[in-house]
Amino acid sequence: MSESKKLTAGIIRNDRLMSDARTIRYYDTNGQKREVLDSRPVEVQPTIGELRLDPLVNEWVAMAAHRQGRVFLPPKELCPLCPTTGELLTEIPEKDYEVVVFDNRSPSLRPPVGDWALPDIVGPDTDLGTAAGKCEVICFAPEHGNSFKDLSPQRVRTLLEAWIDRTEELSQSSFIEHIAPFENRGEEIGVTISHPHGQIYAYSYIPPKVEKMLAAANKYKQETGKILFDAIVERELRDEERIVARNDRWLAYVPYAARYPFEIHVTPLNPVADLTGLTAQDREAFPEIALEVMKRLDGVFGIEMAYIAAWHQAPVRIGRDVMRLHWQITSVRRAPGKLKYLAGSESAMGAFIMDMRPEQSAGQLREVIL
Amino acid sequence: MSESKKLTAGIIRNDRLMSDARTIRYYDTNGQKREVLDSRPVEVQPTIGELRLDPLVNEWVAMAAHRQGRVFLPPKELCPLCPTTGELLTEIPEKDYEVVVFDNRSPSLRPPVGDWALPDIVGPDTDLGTAAGKCEVICFAPEHGNSFKDLSPQRVRTLLEAWIDRTEELSQSSFIEHIAPFENRGEEIGVTISHPHGQIYAYSYIPPKVEKMLAAANKYKQETGKILFDAIVERELRDEERIVARNDRWLAYVPYAARYPFEIHVTPLNPVADLTGLTAQDREAFPEIALEVMKRLDGVFGIEMAYIAAWHQAPVRIGRDVMRLHWQITSVRRAPGKLKYLAGSESAMGAFIMDMRPEQSAGQLREVIL
Repeated sequence: MSESKKLTAGIIRNDRLMSDARTIRYYDTNGQKREVLDSRPVEVQPTIGELRLDPLVNEWVAMAAHRQGRVFLPPKELCPLCPTTGELLTEIPEKDYEVVVFDNRSPSLRPPVGDWALPDIVGPDTDLGTAAGKCEVICFAPEHGNSFKDLSPQRVRTLLEAWIDRTEELSQSSFIEHIAPFENRGEEIGVTISHPHGQIYAYSYIPPKVEKMLAAANKYKQETGKILFDAIVERELRDEERIVARNDRWLAYVPYAARYPFEIHVTPLNPVADLTGLTAQDREAFPEIALEVMKRLDGVFGIEMAYIAAWHQAPVRIGRDVMRLHWQITSVRRAPGKLKYLAGSESAMGAFIMDMRPEQSAGQLREVIL
Repeated sequence: MSESKKLTAGIIRNDRLMSDARTIRYYDTNGQKREVLDSRPVEVQPTIGELRLDPLVNEWVAMAAHRQGRVFLPPKELCPLCPTTGELLTEIPEKDYEVVVFDNRSPSLRPPVGDWALPDIVGPDTDLGTAAGKCEVICFAPEHGNSFKDLSPQRVRTLLEAWIDRTEELSQSSFIEHIAPFENRGEEIGVTISHPHGQIYAYSYIPPKVEKMLAAANKYKQETGKILFDAIVERELRDEERIVARNDRWLAYVPYAARYPFEIHVTPLNPVADLTGLTAQDREAFPEIALEVMKRLDGVFGIEMAYIAAWHQAPVRIGRDVMRLHWQITSVRRAPGKLKYLAGSESAMGAFIMDMRPEQSAGQLREVIL
């Protein structure tokens, strides 16, 4: 199999099959040929996991028992996300790449075989489901040890195009209801491979946090006729004191009720439901603000901050009229040597306690000299 | 001020004022007098924090900006929870104690002054609230470095009585809607003082997790006429394979859809809404199962497990007919040297992925030789 697809901004996607039948997609800007074969021995694919209902809160929990043995902080010379060189056969057969997306080798969620449906929710009598969905890995750069903030603007533009392309394609699968591209960075939050990369989780159910956001957005629409997220952005523009960065097309702010010591939301000023709705101008203007925000974050304490950066989008089929695309970056780092932990109040009760006012962290982020 | 109150099982509570007007309560079994004064200089009390609505999900976030400077892993000889000896004036003036509960010196939530009400929720236009409530510290034993599992059965009985007493008294405050006694253990989850102790959070709002449990319980009652939690316990008794320990009055099991590598729920077999509803027999039978569960948890890998142990109760005023008391113990330890982290899927999307089947962890817990 070899497919080629033209995306916007001159970016071309080339697909190849990996030795165990997974797909790897190269996103390139220079018309590179991608013909090197994956010469690793064929591996048996893990089976699909279980989906169990936690009836206490009516939330699905995916059980992926095969993941216990996955790669854990490999040394640099054994990194599976570096390009293949010489004898070291990695996940990427080519000796160089710009951005690649491949199917996760230890996926929490997998495409189902045959007909698939979510079981009806009937408390503890709810049937066992299968953990349908898709998990992909997205590599930002071939250089090991680099970070998002070290990428060139052009590379961030390619990365954005890959996120958009994956959202567009995954949205077409009948068993996928929600798509979440995210990046985890830092050993403090459990990142197991120190290579600049992210993940794309495509869920067969509405994730609990998204479900709650959707309920709030629907309620607000019913009560006011307005779009909740747009009203939130209006408030942030009006208050001004929590704005961290902006350009013609994008706004970055610490939200009024931030839950983490450092939390930044980045939104297009021209609201859209998901990544595929971004205009050409939005896409061109994203690298500037994305890189500025990430540099400000690392600049606050002059250290690499652990963070989760997640795209929140409208679900694939519902709530598309009330939900808005935005990028949420959250860091548990509250000071050098100090992390915020989610313990009794946050973890057991869901009640967040913040030790720092959002206006303070916004000020610290703005003061960073770039 | 000095008050004395007789509780059940011969336990007597003595209250004293601390130098800064906080209250300390001694729970004793041997009729001890508690007359030593707190001779520390008076400190200025921090002011009440803010309560801000996160309108994206309609959840309150408490802002306690004064907490940044709080005590962080003090050396053993400066532990504020050890009894006062010689020159070291700690939070507890007496030179020995059994169980004590005192008002937190850096509380996230404080009793409000004058009339207090939660602002109406109207999206981003919601008014700023004050972080009303109460935070207390509960010390389990005077010995530094010990753990819950090292307590004598009689001490656990006294501790349970203190939890019950605090629930009963805090329930009488007009501004308190929910009471959550919990214990955080382990540096891995951010515990800042290595002395066996827990906390009691009394919220002026229904914590988000409780709100979600209440919604599920109400829905189940409406649809089936039955109590959700009772049906869950029935299923666990029927399935049997996830039961970890039991006696005549209590059951401990790994829940069917556990979210953490090690998660144990402990429930009285005679269901009650909150701690105050426990019968004399329930109270007498608790120390045995509580100590067994904690010993099994530490026995799995032969190391001290980091955990959160939280009492889930019915809220003070609502849902008392559908919510049930139980104790949830969750550990992020998935193997020696390996923790489960809540990253992109869990933290940003609320979607939990489990790497281990609950039946496996239940088996490991049962196999521990005590």
